[in-house]
Amino acid sequence: MTSTVKVAAIQMNCFMDGKEKNLKLAGKLIDCAGTEGAALIVLPEFFSTAYRVEERDYELSEIIPGPTTDWMHNYCKKHNTFLIGAIIERDICDGVMYDTAVLVGPNGYIGKYRKVCLWGTEVLRFKSGSDYPVFDLGFAKVGIQICYEVGFPEGARILAQKGANLLAYTSAFGLKRTYVWDIATRARALENGVFVIDSNRYGLEKGETDFAGKSRIVNPQGTVLCEATEENEVIIAEINMDEVSEQRLALPYLRDYKKKLFVEKLSE
Amino acid sequence: MTSTVKVAAIQMNCFMDGKEKNLKLAGKLIDCAGTEGAALIVLPEFFSTAYRVEERDYELSEIIPGPTTDWMHNYCKKHNTFLIGAIIERDICDGVMYDTAVLVGPNGYIGKYRKVCLWGTEVLRFKSGSDYPVFDLGFAKVGIQICYEVGFPEGARILAQKGANLLAYTSAFGLKRTYVWDIATRARALENGVFVIDSNRYGLEKGETDFAGKSRIVNPQGTVLCEATEENEVIIAEINMDEVSEQRLALPYLRDYKKKLFVEKLSE
Repeated sequence: MTSTVKVAAIQMNCFMDGKEKNLKLAGKLIDCAGTEGAALIVLPEFFSTAYRVEERDYELSEIIPGPTTDWMHNYCKKHNTFLIGAIIERDICDGVMYDTAVLVGPNGYIGKYRKVCLWGTEVLRFKSGSDYPVFDLGFAKVGIQICYEVGFPEGARILAQKGANLLAYTSAFGLKRTYVWDIATRARALENGVFVIDSNRYGLEKGETDFAGKSRIVNPQGTVLCEATEENEVIIAEINMDEVSEQRLALPYLRDYKKKLFVEKLSE
Repeated sequence: MTSTVKVAAIQMNCFMDGKEKNLKLAGKLIDCAGTEGAALIVLPEFFSTAYRVEERDYELSEIIPGPTTDWMHNYCKKHNTFLIGAIIERDICDGVMYDTAVLVGPNGYIGKYRKVCLWGTEVLRFKSGSDYPVFDLGFAKVGIQICYEVGFPEGARILAQKGANLLAYTSAFGLKRTYVWDIATRARALENGVFVIDSNRYGLEKGETDFAGKSRIVNPQGTVLCEATEENEVIIAEINMDEVSEQRLALPYLRDYKKKLFVEKLSE
């Protein structure tokens, strides 16, 4: 039995004037990845709406599951694949909004991760999440983080400790901070012995927010297996999940982790 | 008032046959750094004894403070500087041994850090430490970590949360895992917005343990300011401690750190 599986990250630019054109572009790119046999495809943060839509957040927000997860479900069925991507969520109970990554599979909506560490003025737009679910897709146990969170070791560590062996980052990460992206995407993979799929936005919004691209797939040694360079591009890597246990044996960070002491000191 | 200060890392090979030759070599290199005006100089792990001295650990171990910290004190007085380096400690009460970094200044021995995360068979040689002191040297607040610990985000995070703005790593890091060194030294600086001084061993011991060298000084953006390439070498960087607060403003990981939630989830 082989543990090899193809995974993909989609890099794309977005249109600021509504969901239709974005979903059309995302659909094309998903078709590319699906045709290549990718079992898991990660989309950028706010792929359906663009990122700097502040004044239209409420209008563009959705109850989850909702229209966009239904749209994703169609592509998951078509290609027998799983899709992850962040959208603007409106809570069904109180109307409060979240920056939320959804996971959808061939059988429909599976679950969501609400961004915990909000970046800058996102705190004015969204409420912070408080849960770190891990999803067992059979071929991988997947944890999700969003954009800015790649700079925090804690989210990735919590997910790895809960059993995740693959982390998906759905991002709209800025060009000015490419040096963070370069280091942090590799560090999170290495220190947890996990595969990392980093999907990022490309392009300029409102003449000032420039996204870095550089979507990448990283192995548990922190090696970049492939990286996107185009405005709209699919990158695919064939990964062997056995590398997770091999790397965790070679560098047993999780085994040598001093849980009780670390927690005690971190809470001081 | 300027916050600029010169700091140094010493890279060196070690002799396996006792302390005298190692201290002679270390002294020469400290003199180089001191003459250049370095206010803080970091030595590699077990600079006075070599690393693979397993069968002679007890014989080579010392009570702290003791002969080696006295030796260091002489150089600190001579150059009006602070020295950090790990030695084999024997506890005065029970004779148990630790892998312990000492900090010595112009006025003598200041304090120590006992390695918490021991690497591989070190667990058979040493007991694990349990404390994370931060030392205020006036020009910087210094936390110390040892070798393997550079791969763990937690030690660095605990120290940064306790106020450290400069982390000193005293290491005997292996050549086979240079990829870890390359990523982790920069990640620890970046995610905490601290300067990092990484002193590492160079050379081969017992025909099988090959040390990586690549001693480096890293700024709070995770940029390598200088890196050693020679067997025995001093690297020096003039650093501006104001960059710590500037970088923490640009990327407020410590401000946006969700202490209560992280601790709760990490302790599950």
